[in-house]
Amino acid sequence: MKKKELIYEGKGKKLYKTDDENIVIAEFKDDLTAFNAQKKSCESGKGSLNCQISSLIFELLNQKNINNHFIKQLDENHMLCKKVKIIPLEVVVRNIATGSLSKRLGIKDETKLPFSLVEFYYKDDLLGDPIINDEHCKIMGILDSDDDIQYIKNIAREVNNILINFFDSKGVKLIDFKIEFGRDSNNNIILADEISPDSCRLWDKESNKKMDKDIFRENLGNVVDAYQEILNRIK
Amino acid sequence: MKKKELIYEGKGKKLYKTDDENIVIAEFKDDLTAFNAQKKSCESGKGSLNCQISSLIFELLNQKNINNHFIKQLDENHMLCKKVKIIPLEVVVRNIATGSLSKRLGIKDETKLPFSLVEFYYKDDLLGDPIINDEHCKIMGILDSDDDIQYIKNIAREVNNILINFFDSKGVKLIDFKIEFGRDSNNNIILADEISPDSCRLWDKESNKKMDKDIFRENLGNVVDAYQEILNRIK
Repeated sequence: MKKKELIYEGKGKKLYKTDDENIVIAEFKDDLTAFNAQKKSCESGKGSLNCQISSLIFELLNQKNINNHFIKQLDENHMLCKKVKIIPLEVVVRNIATGSLSKRLGIKDETKLPFSLVEFYYKDDLLGDPIINDEHCKIMGILDSDDDIQYIKNIAREVNNILINFFDSKGVKLIDFKIEFGRDSNNNIILADEISPDSCRLWDKESNKKMDKDIFRENLGNVVDAYQEILNRIK
Repeated sequence: MKKKELIYEGKGKKLYKTDDENIVIAEFKDDLTAFNAQKKSCESGKGSLNCQISSLIFELLNQKNINNHFIKQLDENHMLCKKVKIIPLEVVVRNIATGSLSKRLGIKDETKLPFSLVEFYYKDDLLGDPIINDEHCKIMGILDSDDDIQYIKNIAREVNNILINFFDSKGVKLIDFKIEFGRDSNNNIILADEISPDSCRLWDKESNKKMDKDIFRENLGNVVDAYQEILNRIK
């Protein structure tokens, strides 16, 4: 399948039409942003690493029957996906407190949480992606029903369990991650977007060395080298 | 009963021991604070108005079987209350979007919400009372169980229904309010703190004129006159 018109450009990906109206091509960009795009960079090779890592993870999730938008990887930085209407919700799952959670609620950095925490953020750059609760989701029309909210939370927890085990077997701790969902042509809610070191916090199991976008956020070194190491470990 | 040692001083009240270890005296202060105490004032007579308004509301809630800490009003600015251990949770119920809700989520000011929204804020001045979800409550040990969370939300909604009708009959619209809960000597969760124009948004039903702490927040006029009008209407 070939790329046709560009239909969307986000911070990390471009989406193109294909000959099939229900299928799109996602192109992974080298751009990196953090702190609601107040910090920006471009790291050659980052996009293709995220495309390859996301593809491997979506394949794993397909095997585990987590319904998602991934069809197949086309080349190093293109992915064929089901077209979805993205739900403007960032679903964050946290196993260990760090980053904004620690700062916002005064939880000591690196505290293991008593259970995996699911948080919702309203995906709106102008508002700075504010945190919301279940009732806000319904009031703002982000999700229509308690069933949809529960469904998304359940899938988020299932993905977390699968990925904790997967990364653990590769010597990596899954600290937290962000996922997004969309509605497919049948209006079913499916997992979408990407799952990569841009959207996960991944620490080396032995040394706690960071292997994710925090390297960029906190100026800790070379992002591309770290992402390459993640790819090498999970390949 | 007589005031003994001061056991707590908050932004709006002082609490004193009594001869009974399970009973305290609350003294309502004239101090006014807003924006996490970045704006401060002192308005003579404000404390006694809040004490009288809160007493009338707690009496109403007692009649409606909403278990709360109020025993009786002692004089214009003292209230006899069951001693509770305050749960560090600000429970906000909103009927119409305004203030921080509108700003944070981009909901047009004065939008009537499709249902009454319950929000939880972690009561911590140093952190700026951050908004939290149900899972944060459990992770931080603010509440132990889903049952306690549901109980508090249910009481908050019941109080809202009672107060909407009560204020409506006095020509006042209840826009939103904040309540707090505590645990009594039997570890039961009961409604505590105060319910006053410091903790409620109250608008005149006809003119939408503000009759609450927003007058202070937004420099709209004389706070004490407005609170006096609320007291006159509900007496």
